[in-house]
Parts: sequence; C-alpha cells; structure tokens
Amino acid sequence: MPPLSHRGQAMPVSPFRKLLPFAEAAKQAGKVVYPLNIGQPDVLTPPEMLDAVRHADLTILGYAPGAGTESYRHKLAAYYQRAGIPARFEDVMVTTAGSEAILFAMLTCLNPGDEVIVAEPFYGTYTAFAIAAGVAIVAVTAHIEDGFALPPLADFEAVITERTRAILICNPSNPTGYVYRRDELEALLGLCIRHDLYLLSDEAYREYCYDGAVSTSVLSLAGGEQHTVVLDTISKRYSACGARVGALVTRNPAVWQAALRFGQMRICPPVLEMLAAEAAADLPPSYFDGTRAEYQARRDLTVARLRAMPGVTCPVPGGAFYVVARLPVDDAEKFGQWLLEEFTLDNQTLMLSPANGFYHTAGLGRQEVRLAYVINRTALDAAFDCLAQALRVYPGRTAQLADAAAVATA
Amino acid sequence: MPPLSHRGQAMPVSPFRKLLPFAEAAKQAGKVVYPLNIGQPDVLTPPEMLDAVRHADLTILGYAPGAGTESYRHKLAAYYQRAGIPARFEDVMVTTAGSEAILFAMLTCLNPGDEVIVAEPFYGTYTAFAIAAGVAIVAVTAHIEDGFALPPLADFEAVITERTRAILICNPSNPTGYVYRRDELEALLGLCIRHDLYLLSDEAYREYCYDGAVSTSVLSLAGGEQHTVVLDTISKRYSACGARVGALVTRNPAVWQAALRFGQMRICPPVLEMLAAEAAADLPPSYFDGTRAEYQARRDLTVARLRAMPGVTCPVPGGAFYVVARLPVDDAEKFGQWLLEEFTLDNQTLMLSPANGFYHTAGLGRQEVRLAYVINRTALDAAFDCLAQALRVYPGRTAQLADAAAVATA
Repeated sequence: MPPLSHRGQAMPVSPFRKLLPFAEAAKQAGKVVYPLNIGQPDVLTPPEMLDAVRHADLTILGYAPGAGTESYRHKLAAYYQRAGIPARFEDVMVTTAGSEAILFAMLTCLNPGDEVIVAEPFYGTYTAFAIAAGVAIVAVTAHIEDGFALPPLADFEAVITERTRAILICNPSNPTGYVYRRDELEALLGLCIRHDLYLLSDEAYREYCYDGAVSTSVLSLAGGEQHTVVLDTISKRYSACGARVGALVTRNPAVWQAALRFGQMRICPPVLEMLAAEAAADLPPSYFDGTRAEYQARRDLTVARLRAMPGVTCPVPGGAFYVVARLPVDDAEKFGQWLLEEFTLDNQTLMLSPANGFYHTAGLGRQEVRLAYVINRTALDAAFDCLAQALRVYPGRTAQLADAAAVATA
Repeated sequence: MPPLSHRGQAMPVSPFRKLLPFAEAAKQAGKVVYPLNIGQPDVLTPPEMLDAVRHADLTILGYAPGAGTESYRHKLAAYYQRAGIPARFEDVMVTTAGSEAILFAMLTCLNPGDEVIVAEPFYGTYTAFAIAAGVAIVAVTAHIEDGFALPPLADFEAVITERTRAILICNPSNPTGYVYRRDELEALLGLCIRHDLYLLSDEAYREYCYDGAVSTSVLSLAGGEQHTVVLDTISKRYSACGARVGALVTRNPAVWQAALRFGQMRICPPVLEMLAAEAAADLPPSYFDGTRAEYQARRDLTVARLRAMPGVTCPVPGGAFYVVARLPVDDAEKFGQWLLEEFTLDNQTLMLSPANGFYHTAGLGRQEVRLAYVINRTALDAAFDCLAQALRVYPGRTAQLADAAAVATA
C-alpha cells in the first residue's frame, strides 16, 4: 500500500479517549463507569436552543456565508459586548466549533516549522492541531505546587527563537482551571508586542470562574488589536458540545480576512446548529448564574473529596470544570486502565484522563490525572468513593502504607 | 503587526464567490440576479431530514464519536451497499461535510511538498485544501473540444515524480459534468497500483448521471482496497448543503485509522445534522428518480439554450449539475463583472463563475465559465435570456459580428 503521511502517523490518539476501549469493555461487563475523562456536562442544553431548530421555518437547508450567518454574527457581537469584550460584527467569524478556530488560527498565523509557545499542562488536542498545521509546540512548564499558575515571563522569554510566532493560552485553563489575572495577560501581551508575536487565547470557559472571579478576554487588553486572536466555542458555555459552533474573533482585519479564506474553503459552518447558537446568544447573562453555581458546587465537592484522600495533591481550580490532581500511584495511565479492567466498588468504577497527554515534555504528569467535574454531585460522590477505595487497594500505589492504613481504619 | 503565514496569504478567494461583492451591489440596486455561480440547488430538502431533527428526543446536545454516530454509520454503509458499493460499517468515517473529507485525505495520504495529480478544470477549492495541507497540485489538462474527457493515461504518467502520492478525481465531475467510465477508472487504478499512489475520488454527485448512465465508485474496483479513498457528502445528494455532513470511506484500515485521529482532533461532526443525514440514508433509491429527472431537464434546457447562442461552445455534461462553456468574450471574469455592474435585461442579470478559478495552469479557461443548473427551468430560461442578450451587446465580445447580427434579426 502507499505509505501514510508522517503527520498521519504522528497524529496522536485523543488523550481523553485513550482509555475508551477499556471503558467500553467495562460497560459491556455490566459495570457502571463514571465518565470524569471528558468535558461532556450532564447539564441540560437550554431548551431555547433546541426549540429554535425545531421551529425553524426551513424548506431548503442551504449554504450560509463562510463567516457564518449575519444574524448570528450580530448576536454574537452583542454577547461579547454584554460581557465587556470590545468585539464588533466585523471581528467575528463563526467556525465549526472551537476546534476549527484553533486550526484556522494556526494555519493563518504560523508557517510550517514555526513555533508556538504553550504553558503545559495544556489541552492535549493542541498537539494534534499543531501536527496538522505543521507547527512546533514549545512548552513552558507550570507546576502543580504553584496551583499551575502562569510560569514566570522569563520562562517564556527564554524559549523565544526566530521561529516563534505565537503564544497560545487557554483561559480559564483546560485542564488546570487556572484563571489568568489581567496583569498577567498584560505582561504576556507586552511580551508578544516586543517580539511581534500573536497572542492566541482559547476562552471556551469564559463564564465559568468561581468565588466571584471574572475572566479577562485578551480582546479587552489595550494595545492588543494587532496581536490578539480569541478562539471560542458554545460547546461548554451552553452544554452544547455536539453543536460544533465556535468563533474566531480578532480586531486584526488581515488575520480575519485570511481566516475567512480558510473558512470559504469549507464553505460554511453547520447551519441548523447556527440557529441553535443564535438562540443561545439571546439568553440573558443570568443564565450563567445557575450553571456557574452548579459547577462551583461540583468543584467544591471535587476538591474536598480529593484532598481527603491520603497522598493526593489537588490545587483549587479557579475556573473551567477540570482539576489536575497528583495521585499516589506509580503511573496514572496504568492506574486508569486498572480502574476499568480490574477494579469495582459495588460494580462501579470511573474513567479519568491520564495527565501525560496534557504535557508536551516527555515524562511529566506521570502521576497526574485530569478529572472533569461535569456530572451531578451524587454521581461525583459515587465516583470519588470508587477513587478513594481504588487508591487504597491499587497494587501500584506509592503513598505511605501507614497513611493508607490510617484511612482504612478511620 | 506579526506577519501572516505564507499559506494564509496564498489562500485564494473562493472561485464561485469572487464576483459576490458585485452581485450584492447589483441586488442593492434592485436588480434580480440569477445565481448560476454556485451549486446551491433550489430543490427542497427532503422533509424527512428536517422532521428527524424537529422530532429528536434530545435534552443534551452532547458529543458524538469521532467517526460519527454508530447508527448513522450503519445506515450509510447500507446506503452504499444498495448503490452497489462494497463499503462496510468499519470503512465509513463521518466527516464535517465533504470539505473535511478532502482535507483529512490530503493530510493523511500526503506529506507537505508531496504532489497530487488532478485533471483540470477541477473543483477550484481543491487548491485551497492543497495550500492548507502544504500539498502541491499537478494538473493534467482536459479539453473542452473533447467534452472534457479524461486525458490520456500517458499525460498522467508523464507528470508522475518521486513526490507524487495521489491522483484526485471528481466523478461525476464538478465543474465539467464528465462521468468516468469503468474502464477509465480501472486504468487509473492500475496506474496508481503500479506507482503506489492513492486514488482519491470525490463522488459528491454519484446519483446525478443522465441519459441512463450510472457512475462507478472507485470502491467497487477490484484490487483497489489499499489505494482507493472516497470523499463524499450529502450536500448535493439531498439538497442539504448547509448540513455539513460528509464521509471519508476507505477499505484501507491504516488510512481509516489515521483519518480517525484527525477526526478525534475536532472531536465529532455536527450532531443535529447527523440526525438529518441518518433520515436521508433511509430514503428509498426512488427518491433520486425525481431529482435526477429534474436535473436532467435542467441540463437539457441549459445545453439547448447555450448551443443556440452564436460562438458558444458547450459540451453535454453527463452528470453533476454544472456545465463549463466557452463564451465569445475577451475575458470571462471581466464579462461576469460586467454582467453584474453594467448589464440588465428587464432589470435582470445573472451571476456565473469564471472558469479560470477551476484551472491550475495560468491562462487557461479565460473564455470559459462554469454554470450551475440548480435553479428551476423558468428561472434558468430567464437567466439564459439575459446571457444571450448580454453576449450580443458586451463590448468585449469576440464572436463574428455577422453571427451576432444574424441572431439579432432572427
């Protein structure tokens, strides 16, 4: 047969789907598997979104413009403005999910062989997009001991080369939940301006910041017009992951125009789901009060339960709906597989994402996992009962036996 | 500002949207503009498709698998089998429209710098995908005098280099309507096998062959399992262009698996629209009898009207719903702009696609246009009345004045 391309061979299996075959086997065997591996919330999609599609007066499901329907772009601009983000109609290009916004931004801003700096751990799929776009990821490491705070600016500066073209952040961060402060973003933008780099900002979790925190969009930074590109999606915001509607937003018209030409290549985003997205953009800001409170309660439960487990390190994530925790295990991927293949508690177990898939540097994150607190608290509690028990009995556990024994007899 | 990527700069404006600003201006000025520029049929989308979405029992619009829902993949495999194409469930990967199937095939089968051979004129957007994938298109020219028949195999063989990895065809062809005979496809496959190349086949217009002709899928060629990849879409088949649901189908499991990893990168195709697609896959083969008859009648009208215009060369397209015609004009792009800016007949005009956007070789197709016969016959007739009159009065006409005078007094 003809050879596969190198990128076809290099393209990784999705880090949150790596354990899927074992989960399928566990379900086949009758086990209940709590899915903490993927950011698929059990929160209902706003009925307004589904109703908009149900009641659409359509007889021909025809093409839309490459940048998305004008009506949706207007509503999206209004949504940004309500959120204090200075994005205008002409800055908004609708994409087929956040995925396409990431890909188009890489294709538009970087040449093959160029470098993009990303703080690790990062959304593992960035690696796949970088391979597809022929771009090299250069990682700067954030540490669990610091709550995965933004690494010092000097760490970014130290890895800038003549091939560096962009810094890519996710704010609030998937997978760490870290929320960037405005002064941190201003410092990053300053660095980008000094070195003539793009600042690409994945803001999929904008509304989900806890304890009263508010996330800052890079679009609202003074002097950033030429440098900042926001990668956005409705997937998480409205629990509409299957809708595949996102946006690339930039005040740089040259970037916008080039991204649009990539958009014309694929003609248009999905039309029915743009109708749903348009209805979502009409939802009042109060919609998020309820969902945010629910996710905050889930986060609080998650952190409390994890911190009560001996040998577990768990920062408090300020946003998004993930936590990266360090477990007292030899190898989180082995542990994840063991949970699905060997373990049950009352015929239940859980699926997690080994964090090595979120690090670029080989060997990092071997004891860490990403957990998505996207299921209701009763289910979360049951999942953590499983995890606590699993950590007591896992053959590869590394915590002091004394600790484990203390818990066992508590 | 930071520089745009080279590919961002090289990415072309869509060839069927090039004249769009002039069409918008014409509409603003109150003109009726018949859209023969783009393959957006006025045929109603089957109500079954829209009803499937309207009545879906959904409360959470969640992710689907990267290869598409299992239920849709099963139905799509059944559709292929009914069409005599030996594609199984495990060969079918659902994509976000045919666009994504084209992109994933290029990313999977070719390295940056590798070459894909395409017979020109070809679907102009292939150029955009090739730029995005870093792949070089090498053209072999088909000629209007031959009805755009497949160029001799020797022409393909002559341009094969050590960087050649694939031959890409569109069958039935957009833009020429040429339908490949089985023996031609077998010869192409033989060439691919001898040189260890992929044979990528865009079969978006499979059902639309006229005068009793039937198109042949490369998947049905004996011995082609390792080499053939079909790029498919429901856009044209069911007049559902906005649904953005397609498929990459191959019996080569290594290609399928690598394409799936690209698919996992973007997580899943649009979910509501997969429901619509699933309903379409349930439609009986007789559905196509009605649509095919309608397109054939439109084709017949199109060819008859064009051939009646002095100086126009128009082959009879055997399939799809386009024709590439040569007009007696100095420059088809200038003529297309003139139609929108300067011309009216009873306040009506038409928009066409200059064919230069469908040729890879600079300078070819300067007098040719692609016309999509996707609007009803009354509208088509009115559009051709405009075209006939326009060709009489266009200042840059090249036909014999005697001919033009003869028609004017006829």
